[in-house]
Amino acid sequence: MDIVEFFQQSTGKWSSLRTSHNMAVKQQEGGRSDIVIEMLDQTDPEVIKLCELYKVDPTSALCGVRVTWNGTMEWDQEKHSGSTVLVPLTDPAAPNEGQLLREVGYAKKAPVSGRYLMNGEELTLTTESESMSSKERFWFESPNVRLRHSILKRSGGFSMTSFCSEIRMGVANPPEKAADQATTM
Amino acid sequence: MDIVEFFQQSTGKWSSLRTSHNMAVKQQEGGRSDIVIEMLDQTDPEVIKLCELYKVDPTSALCGVRVTWNGTMEWDQEKHSGSTVLVPLTDPAAPNEGQLLREVGYAKKAPVSGRYLMNGEELTLTTESESMSSKERFWFESPNVRLRHSILKRSGGFSMTSFCSEIRMGVANPPEKAADQATTM
Repeated sequence: MDIVEFFQQSTGKWSSLRTSHNMAVKQQEGGRSDIVIEMLDQTDPEVIKLCELYKVDPTSALCGVRVTWNGTMEWDQEKHSGSTVLVPLTDPAAPNEGQLLREVGYAKKAPVSGRYLMNGEELTLTTESESMSSKERFWFESPNVRLRHSILKRSGGFSMTSFCSEIRMGVANPPEKAADQATTM
Repeated sequence: MDIVEFFQQSTGKWSSLRTSHNMAVKQQEGGRSDIVIEMLDQTDPEVIKLCELYKVDPTSALCGVRVTWNGTMEWDQEKHSGSTVLVPLTDPAAPNEGQLLREVGYAKKAPVSGRYLMNGEELTLTTESESMSSKERFWFESPNVRLRHSILKRSGGFSMTSFCSEIRMGVANPPEKAADQATTM
């Protein structure tokens, strides 16, 4: 699977359960959100605008993706909503990886550029800055179940991990009710 | 990395944060536990006993591992504790995968046999039965930070995902306090 196919499979509306583990203070926090993912054409004004922001030739954009989220986190029960545009660029030297432009970063609310890597069916996004790095892994357990894991690291210390379980909304056969109790190991 | 090296790196005491996502009713549940992982020799009586239970030649055991856990889950605040022994067997046809014997299964408290697969630095364990299947992925973000993800599936429906972030106990330099607020996407 290449990154354009991965984004195409991701399009639609998703119901997402999110948990963050704060590894320093050993606390966890849950949340839930609705996520909408839309493909944008290479010639979409938002794609061109993002390429121009990074001084990149828009013809090197493989596609564009708009991600919109609307959710709540346990800690405040307030609405957290936002949207961002992602644009992966071609890399002639490496078909499965390259630069990824973001309108809003994962950890910083500012434009940030990172890398994408398709490893088989799994997508990894990384961003690095002087003070922090983030890594996100995305994979499908089925066409309608997408899982995500991310880790934020600061100055050599691991600070926060997050996990999301996402189910496509409006699927005719929702998952069955959870059954046997798994071990709590 | 092979599975024996993976288990060797896993030995020690770990502080684990665990979250389960019940994907049918869209609820999540947190917990925490202390986990102790010990290597057992191929000639350890527990390894030999487990091999005999499965009618397997004990000399095909690569090693043995004893996992002991002690924790609490949010739903009842009671202690959940237990232990199990795992024994990976050699598979002459495939150096990175093979059968894995378990004293206690992931989803069932009975002996269950599954498969292991080392894919680079990541370990995947799978078990299948007529009514359910489970898949667990384990990887190290650093020698002292281990992450786990599991998914339980019943009769074609996804029922439960779990995520664990584990930090080795007694490490001299604990992770830094979590910093910037990540996006809640």
